[in-house]
Amino acid sequence: MSRKRLVVVGGDAAGMSAASQARRKRGRDDLDVVAFERGRATSYSACGVPYWISGAVEHEEDLVSRSPDQHRANGIDVRIRTEVVAIDLAARTVRARDLERGREYDEPFDDLVYAAGSVPMRPPVPGIDAGGVYGVQTLDDGAALRAELTSGRVRRVVVIGGGYIGLEIAEACVVRGLEATVVDQAATPVGTFDPDVGEFIADAVRGRGVSLVLSEAVAGIETDPDGRAVAVHTEAGRTLPADLVVLGLGVRPNVALARDAGIPLGPSGGIAVDNRMRTQVEGVWAAGDCVESLHRLSGRRVVVALGTHANKQGRVAGINLGGGYATFPGVIGTAVTKVCDLEVARTGLSEAEAEEAGFCYVTASVDSTTRAGYFPGARPIRTKLLAEKRSGRLLGAQIVGREGAAKRIDVLAATIWNEMGVDEILGLDLSYAPPFAPVWDPVLIAARKAFEAVEADLTR
Amino acid sequence: MSRKRLVVVGGDAAGMSAASQARRKRGRDDLDVVAFERGRATSYSACGVPYWISGAVEHEEDLVSRSPDQHRANGIDVRIRTEVVAIDLAARTVRARDLERGREYDEPFDDLVYAAGSVPMRPPVPGIDAGGVYGVQTLDDGAALRAELTSGRVRRVVVIGGGYIGLEIAEACVVRGLEATVVDQAATPVGTFDPDVGEFIADAVRGRGVSLVLSEAVAGIETDPDGRAVAVHTEAGRTLPADLVVLGLGVRPNVALARDAGIPLGPSGGIAVDNRMRTQVEGVWAAGDCVESLHRLSGRRVVVALGTHANKQGRVAGINLGGGYATFPGVIGTAVTKVCDLEVARTGLSEAEAEEAGFCYVTASVDSTTRAGYFPGARPIRTKLLAEKRSGRLLGAQIVGREGAAKRIDVLAATIWNEMGVDEILGLDLSYAPPFAPVWDPVLIAARKAFEAVEADLTR
Repeated sequence: MSRKRLVVVGGDAAGMSAASQARRKRGRDDLDVVAFERGRATSYSACGVPYWISGAVEHEEDLVSRSPDQHRANGIDVRIRTEVVAIDLAARTVRARDLERGREYDEPFDDLVYAAGSVPMRPPVPGIDAGGVYGVQTLDDGAALRAELTSGRVRRVVVIGGGYIGLEIAEACVVRGLEATVVDQAATPVGTFDPDVGEFIADAVRGRGVSLVLSEAVAGIETDPDGRAVAVHTEAGRTLPADLVVLGLGVRPNVALARDAGIPLGPSGGIAVDNRMRTQVEGVWAAGDCVESLHRLSGRRVVVALGTHANKQGRVAGINLGGGYATFPGVIGTAVTKVCDLEVARTGLSEAEAEEAGFCYVTASVDSTTRAGYFPGARPIRTKLLAEKRSGRLLGAQIVGREGAAKRIDVLAATIWNEMGVDEILGLDLSYAPPFAPVWDPVLIAARKAFEAVEADLTR
Repeated sequence: MSRKRLVVVGGDAAGMSAASQARRKRGRDDLDVVAFERGRATSYSACGVPYWISGAVEHEEDLVSRSPDQHRANGIDVRIRTEVVAIDLAARTVRARDLERGREYDEPFDDLVYAAGSVPMRPPVPGIDAGGVYGVQTLDDGAALRAELTSGRVRRVVVIGGGYIGLEIAEACVVRGLEATVVDQAATPVGTFDPDVGEFIADAVRGRGVSLVLSEAVAGIETDPDGRAVAVHTEAGRTLPADLVVLGLGVRPNVALARDAGIPLGPSGGIAVDNRMRTQVEGVWAAGDCVESLHRLSGRRVVVALGTHANKQGRVAGINLGGGYATFPGVIGTAVTKVCDLEVARTGLSEAEAEEAGFCYVTASVDSTTRAGYFPGARPIRTKLLAEKRSGRLLGAQIVGREGAAKRIDVLAATIWNEMGVDEILGLDLSYAPPFAPVWDPVLIAARKAFEAVEADLTR
């Protein structure tokens, strides 16, 4: 039996999960595992970067779940500060560039895991590549941004885009005593939520002292003679002075290298993979932010950049290429975040997504409390449900509230996953005790109201 | 159309939910609704009583979601302090006793809802009916107990039975500066949890300053010449001095009246009802703590006294007798409680229950954190799963941890409800962000470990 070589492109969640699983499945005399990572760190929490920037998380190392040395001790040949610059599928080699020493070399592979993650979206406006314009994607991005924000030279920060990360960074700036403005072309921030839920988010963000400029697109970034950003201009003619600009528009899959090599992409722009995370090229696997996933409700392929998917997909790729069997079953759009003191969460389809997928639906929103109303610490929670007309099947859920609200999205995610109707959900045996829920849990009250809406619609 | 009369026996969660739904469905010129309640209050939270006793909930009224007057305003003829003492199914009447005035009268009915709740279990030992021995079942019980505990005459409280309510009362006593001892014949408290989980509960209770006397049965209660309890004796010969004794052994369905009238009971001792909450007597319905429910996993009929079931069952009864259609789909044994600072929750079957139901299973326990490990406020959470051999179907789950741990039981309840295997659960799209979960939610880590246990067992 000849020894094989696995090459992993990208040393974060997906890539290192795949490498670790393959390593567990196959002995060191059977498989070499080489992982290339452009940055300094492996297996870190990209989602934790905003909290490190705010200071809520103290040390950069806290975000690293396994360092390059720890991986090496487990028999994975991790090469940090080494960028893969080309993949030759015919020769079965990757071209690696050592960013420290500047030299390039070819590394052969039998199996390849492509896990290059994502890159921040950059609007095609003048000045977008200027100095002082930061993405927040990697730990190294975070380190650079943190150094700027704590330098004393920055007072005004403008965040372009009011997505999850954009708002988290804006809040981090306010925590650090800086002025933060978020500009977004939509009427409410975090466009993955319905506008009525987005209003709550906008209120919370403003209440925290962040300026929100909504319904305005960015026209360009003004720079000083040194080429550094000094202001953001909107198409409506507004000028937002900025000592620093942060991109908070979300991300797109980092597929350039794969595409150039001839690894097929899917309709969404992410790398096309099957249930086992195989690309359409023999022996080439992909996982994480750079791939597209099946959305189980819409039936479409979507790109969702989330650490939880990256970990699962990497695990699946690693098990399969190690000779085992595992599948990634797709996504239903579950997400949660904390916007200042406000907890917001979603699963399934938003109204816009449901319409796009061709569903007809009714909605129900209910206000309740996280604990029994009379119990100390009871906090408000609003639950919004989308149920399919006629069938009553739950299509989507959004939760907005205070402490203890958002994690309830998981039970709704489990019901959507199982294609439950709102009438069935209403009968679920959920936990009840005064310190944890009203006697009708908010989830059940919402299901009850949604069921009534479905029934009312039937007889209309 | 002649006007009909609905009589409801018992004015708490189940009875008043039924009354309210029937009232909504049928007009006042079509249906009279008369509800008899032995106590002073309607629609109160029995589960909240321990927290009122501790002082965490300030006012008795806070526990009442709808008063007799509010029900009357909605067209329900509520008669408090009136006990139904007999039911005559042939004559279609109930015999009511006005406890204030002492008079008795017959009230006719077309439909009857029996919702008499439960009564505290009393071990058949000497002294159990002595003065100073309290159950904690109704708001009136709670008021009496609270008056005693705050009287200044009570210093030492012995709680017989370490169930949920027993522990909550013991904690309430400690909060009030009293000495509390809990005596239970089992080796760990809260017998609905597996012993390994029970150990955590025992530690938390002891840590809070409650004395636990375990593996000892109560032999009798010693009384003073006035017939008031002064000590509890165990069969092992231990004497526990007591100024007050509280029964914390759980409850049994209050079915005496129904049984005497000829309403059939089921094998569990609760009233037998079908999916629509119909008893085996035409026009007689039952709901709440006094009925038995289908356990969806064991297939058996069980009595579970919980406000959440009572509310749902009452709603179902009321909708059906009002001419609508609704069913109660059964239970899966979900429960949650806070024992001092410890959150504990369960769903599905415990090990003992799984064995009794004839399942073979594997178990997996994992320790994790409620938030990302590096995130401020991350607290420990232990998740234990029982998965069926071969199929891998999740049979049961128990969670023990600190703030933010227990409500995760609901997602596991939803997966058990849908008969998911642990391998499917592992693929669930659950919410992730550092303030809410590690990148592998504790639920997913536990499913992963349980899946590995199922696989290992297959190849054994």
